[in-house]
Amino acid sequence: MKTIAIDMDGVLADVYQQLIDMHYSESGITLKSSDMVGMTEAEAFPHLLKHVHTKGFFETVPLIPGGQEVVAELSKQYKIFIVSAATEFPLSLTEKHNWLNKHFPFISWQQMVFCGSKEIIKTDIMIDDHFKNLDVFDGKTFLFTQPHNEKSSPGKHERVNNWNEIKKILLG
Amino acid sequence: MKTIAIDMDGVLADVYQQLIDMHYSESGITLKSSDMVGMTEAEAFPHLLKHVHTKGFFETVPLIPGGQEVVAELSKQYKIFIVSAATEFPLSLTEKHNWLNKHFPFISWQQMVFCGSKEIIKTDIMIDDHFKNLDVFDGKTFLFTQPHNEKSSPGKHERVNNWNEIKKILLG
Repeated sequence: MKTIAIDMDGVLADVYQQLIDMHYSESGITLKSSDMVGMTEAEAFPHLLKHVHTKGFFETVPLIPGGQEVVAELSKQYKIFIVSAATEFPLSLTEKHNWLNKHFPFISWQQMVFCGSKEIIKTDIMIDDHFKNLDVFDGKTFLFTQPHNEKSSPGKHERVNNWNEIKKILLG
Repeated sequence: MKTIAIDMDGVLADVYQQLIDMHYSESGITLKSSDMVGMTEAEAFPHLLKHVHTKGFFETVPLIPGGQEVVAELSKQYKIFIVSAATEFPLSLTEKHNWLNKHFPFISWQQMVFCGSKEIIKTDIMIDDHFKNLDVFDGKTFLFTQPHNEKSSPGKHERVNNWNEIKKILLG
C-alpha cells in the first residue's frame, strides 16, 4: 500500500479563512484572498504572528472543502499520514490533535506526525502547499494551490488546485 | 552530515524512574527496576496507564544520565532529530515540547518530531528502546537497553547500554 504524507495548514485546514475571519472580527475589514495572490502569508496578514499564537486558532480553523471526503476515500487505497509543522507553535500541538480527532476520526494517533522540518519524512507521496517542504522530499510531490504559491511555477512538483483534482489523479 | 533520530522515553527521559517515584508516592513501596527485567512496561507498572495520563508526567520526567552531554557533542558532527511517539497521549505533546526546551535548549523546533508510528522516519541512524520502532527503520539501528528489552536478543540492531557507549561508537 502506497503511503501519502498530507499537510494540514493550507491543505486540510483553511488557514486563510481563519485569518480573514480574525482580521474582520478585530477591525471590521474583510480582506480578500484574491488580493493576496503572490504575497507571502506574512505579507498578506499583518497580524499573522499574533493570530497564530492565539489560543484556539488551530482548533477552530475551518476545513478546506473536499478534504474530509477525499482523504476518507484515499484511506481505502493508501496509507495516510497527516504531517504537520507544529512544533514552531507549541499551542498548536494539542489543538491540531483535537482538530484531527474531531474532523478526521478515521485518522488514528499512529497516523499523526507533528514536526518541525519535514526533511526526514519518508512516504511515497507528499501533498503540501509550501515549496520548503516539497523541495526536500524524495517521492512524488503535489503542490496544493494557496494564494502564497499561486504565481509560482510549480517546478518539479505537480500543482493541484483543490481536493477534487487530487481525487481524480490518485483515485482515477 | 549524517542524521540521527533519537527517541525520548527510555533513551533521553527516564520513564522507569518517574514511574517508580509515582508508585512510591502513592503506596510507600519502592519498586526495583532490577525486578522488572524481561517484563513489559505494562507488566512492570500496574498503574502505567493512569500515570502516563497524569498531568505533569512527561514534563517532570528525570533525565537519563549522559544524554544531555552526549547529544550536545553529537550535534557538532550529526544532524539530530528528536523523534518521540507522543500522539497516543495528547497531554504529552506540550509537555514533551516544554521538557525538550528546558533540558535540550540547543534542539530547535525544526528538530522535533512528535509522532505515532515511526515507520515514515528517514534518517541515517535511529536510537530507540523499542523493537517496534527499530524493526521498521531502514538505516543503522541502536537498541538502547531498558529493563523491558534487556533479556531480548538485539537481532539486527546494535545494543547500547548507556550514553557513554553511544559516544564511543558514534564519536570514536
